[in-house]
Amino acid sequence: MSAILKQRVRYAPYLKKLRTAEECVPFFKNGQYIGWSGFTGVGSPKAVPTALADYVEKNKLQGKLAFNLFVGASAGPEESRWADLNMLARRAPHQVGKPIRKSINEGRTLFADKHLSMFPQDLTYGFYTRQKKDNDLLDYMLIEATAITEDGAIVPGPAVGGSPEMLSVADKIIIEVNTSIPSFEGIHDIDMPINPPNRPPLPYTRVDQRNGLTAIPVDPEKVIAVVESTIADRVPEPNKPDEKSKKIAQNLVEFFEQEVKAGRMPENLHPLQSGIGNVGNAIIDGLADSNFKHMNVWTEVMQDSFLQYFESGKVDFATSTSVRLSQKGFKQFFDNWDLFSKKICLRSQVVSNSPEMIRRLGVIAMNTPVEFDIYGHANSTNVNGSKMLNGLGGSADFLRNAKVSIMHSPSARPSKTDPTGISSVVPFASHVDQTEHDVDIYVTEQGLADLRGLAPKERAKEIIEHCAHPDYKAQLQDYYDRAVFYCTKTKALHEPHILRDAFKMYLNLEDNGTMKLKSWDQKF
Amino acid sequence: MSAILKQRVRYAPYLKKLRTAEECVPFFKNGQYIGWSGFTGVGSPKAVPTALADYVEKNKLQGKLAFNLFVGASAGPEESRWADLNMLARRAPHQVGKPIRKSINEGRTLFADKHLSMFPQDLTYGFYTRQKKDNDLLDYMLIEATAITEDGAIVPGPAVGGSPEMLSVADKIIIEVNTSIPSFEGIHDIDMPINPPNRPPLPYTRVDQRNGLTAIPVDPEKVIAVVESTIADRVPEPNKPDEKSKKIAQNLVEFFEQEVKAGRMPENLHPLQSGIGNVGNAIIDGLADSNFKHMNVWTEVMQDSFLQYFESGKVDFATSTSVRLSQKGFKQFFDNWDLFSKKICLRSQVVSNSPEMIRRLGVIAMNTPVEFDIYGHANSTNVNGSKMLNGLGGSADFLRNAKVSIMHSPSARPSKTDPTGISSVVPFASHVDQTEHDVDIYVTEQGLADLRGLAPKERAKEIIEHCAHPDYKAQLQDYYDRAVFYCTKTKALHEPHILRDAFKMYLNLEDNGTMKLKSWDQKF
Repeated sequence: MSAILKQRVRYAPYLKKLRTAEECVPFFKNGQYIGWSGFTGVGSPKAVPTALADYVEKNKLQGKLAFNLFVGASAGPEESRWADLNMLARRAPHQVGKPIRKSINEGRTLFADKHLSMFPQDLTYGFYTRQKKDNDLLDYMLIEATAITEDGAIVPGPAVGGSPEMLSVADKIIIEVNTSIPSFEGIHDIDMPINPPNRPPLPYTRVDQRNGLTAIPVDPEKVIAVVESTIADRVPEPNKPDEKSKKIAQNLVEFFEQEVKAGRMPENLHPLQSGIGNVGNAIIDGLADSNFKHMNVWTEVMQDSFLQYFESGKVDFATSTSVRLSQKGFKQFFDNWDLFSKKICLRSQVVSNSPEMIRRLGVIAMNTPVEFDIYGHANSTNVNGSKMLNGLGGSADFLRNAKVSIMHSPSARPSKTDPTGISSVVPFASHVDQTEHDVDIYVTEQGLADLRGLAPKERAKEIIEHCAHPDYKAQLQDYYDRAVFYCTKTKALHEPHILRDAFKMYLNLEDNGTMKLKSWDQKF
Repeated sequence: MSAILKQRVRYAPYLKKLRTAEECVPFFKNGQYIGWSGFTGVGSPKAVPTALADYVEKNKLQGKLAFNLFVGASAGPEESRWADLNMLARRAPHQVGKPIRKSINEGRTLFADKHLSMFPQDLTYGFYTRQKKDNDLLDYMLIEATAITEDGAIVPGPAVGGSPEMLSVADKIIIEVNTSIPSFEGIHDIDMPINPPNRPPLPYTRVDQRNGLTAIPVDPEKVIAVVESTIADRVPEPNKPDEKSKKIAQNLVEFFEQEVKAGRMPENLHPLQSGIGNVGNAIIDGLADSNFKHMNVWTEVMQDSFLQYFESGKVDFATSTSVRLSQKGFKQFFDNWDLFSKKICLRSQVVSNSPEMIRRLGVIAMNTPVEFDIYGHANSTNVNGSKMLNGLGGSADFLRNAKVSIMHSPSARPSKTDPTGISSVVPFASHVDQTEHDVDIYVTEQGLADLRGLAPKERAKEIIEHCAHPDYKAQLQDYYDRAVFYCTKTKALHEPHILRDAFKMYLNLEDNGTMKLKSWDQKF
């Protein structure tokens, strides 16, 4: 037992349950329901999943030892390895990584994506375990801790996620105490699940408010093993924003300035939510360079780009359910622990993503879609309607409930043969995750469409004029004009469409490698 | 001044502002922004809108005196008349009635439908009046009252709706005191708007909890006219449920019984929300005949069918933002005022439809779609993707946030030439208002599909097997099988689609009068 482990585990009975990861392998049987801690690739268990993967690989048990796996959002490379080894029979509610995406799209993993605010509560309701034979909702919960309190409660690492809910419904618990990183004790604020009809209001009215519970309480009897882990999270450093992303950020900062001038936003803006990705990072940089001060952040995940905010004093306080940092980011974070730990609070994902909180605080939500259509529906998940990327995540939690809901995207992307072969603006989205009722603002490097209060036909004008790539403006306008003509005849002019043509840009991409049509009369 | 008016208006200064409806006509100018009280066809102003319509008709001002009109949801026949007279340039967020639907679908009215929980707050944010030249958000608010308190506060009639918000941002207020119906004083519980960053939690943890504000406070200086109205609301009596609706209700009651048995619901169920319509009424009847006792209701509108609950003692308490009753229903309501007023509370629509409350209470949401697809997306608004019915209403407020989200529909409807020419189950919904992430249960007269926790491919199996009409089962299964084959090649097996074929059932309906295809290879 390492000295540091003994120091971290302050509840003595757990030290009697010390196991190696390999000693935990026999606990697991094919078809079990398992929860992992973690959110957006950090804070997941690593030692036991690796030992299990090694065991499957060594004994050629691919597809014979497979699980129903639940994680608050995405886990790290360990889940990729499980996917490659056909160890994921079922997975919810979010994932990231080529191997698991491949497994889902090849039909080897059944994946159900769900609003991240809802998944943990729905799990406690028993919705994910209706086919399970016994009464326990999860057979095992594997959680990474950075410390254990005197009463056996678990201090998580860089993610709270859905761990409180999953721990509360797990039959048995395995704790990995990660001694390769400092303890995160004091940075968390935990809400334990209370289900209807006895659920109370979330009491928070400010981003920095806490209830004071800094560790997740568990029944120590359920803890069957404590494993020391020295495997660090591995998050790549973020890319430097490209010119397009910078232009998008600039368009957005101008919009915020106008909103403040119009009196629709306070001078320090409303609390910000920002999704993962290149454009998201550019916006964080753009706001860092702006004149806004005393900003606040209410989001689901903070990345490296956020750290500059605290050092510059631009942001007063930030809260999320995970800090997804690169190794460089984590070093900066721990080197400035006294500063950062006072300005950051990590909450349960049912709280960080809660409609109740997002609406109460008037959050500004910003996320990237796969594509969006001329009337304002957005696809966040499925390329060409069928091929899963990462899942819905918290996008709809934030976009539906925010005071101002923003989606940002480059206006076009390259296909294999055409540098602007894929338009982000289409007549009819091939999959709808965010409806026309849920997004206020679309912004591309071309400009910004403000859809608030507008009818569908007005939205189409805004989107085509301000968001579409020049290569597609005339084509989209042509679709719209033809649809208006057609729907004048059918007396259906609320949201004019020609269903016969609505997907032709996708069909042309498939047949001819670009969304640029010769004509809307083209046959497919 | 009638004796009853004098009795109802307890704030003397208002009596000096008495006007006839006709005397109010000169207040109104083309292009103004106007709010009306009312929700689901009850509680709207009637006298002044009728006088304005008469004025337009008499002076042939059709299209020359037109307004931007906002109502909490739908108003009554007066708004139909305004639509016929081209008096509705713009309308949000919901409407009912052939004339206004016609005006929208002919392109004469710009209509924006929006979540009913969000519309009033978005109006106070200024989102609907960005093009308005002056600073007032609404030029006039017309509200129907049934009494005025000693301090000039307004006691509404059968609907609270968005009146608190609209009154708070109106430049001038006109009150119609309806003396043809008894006062509703004591039945309301009003939340006045407080916007971020100072918005507090909604304090309610039970359906019967009140904050005690029984009238809407206004600045008396803003009240420019008080008009006596004797025009009653005119809601048709509900139809008797047909056999299909009864079968749907039966399927649903069986589901609830199983959920209680499985321990996923308490014996008195969770608070119920039920939408308007034949199937909704049948479900209310079905639950009335069931063994469930001490039920509660948290919904946006109560109809005649709810009244039996209170008399039988099946329901302990019910809350909504409107009671939409027929004249017979209102008679029954007022004859039993002592009973009903103790068991009913009418709230602001931002509270009745609040995600915060719906999730906290674990509401069971039940609504009817236009159609739904094999993966669980539903169309609530636009026939064939373009033609507006009534708008989104509160459907998505409830379905997204409920503990159990249910959509009910007959499995097929007649086209002009085929008694089952229109399938309610399609491969790809022609419009998406409720995403695959938002609906747990679909139920038709054929059976019930329980989608909770399932991946898209599993959902398709459930929906085709349990919900589709027998005339369409093979055809839908064929689409699915072909899509699986196709997406096996393209490695896109998460949610298998063939975009080339996805809308063919609509195209066949248009060309050949039925959704029954000869073959999926058929060309359009």
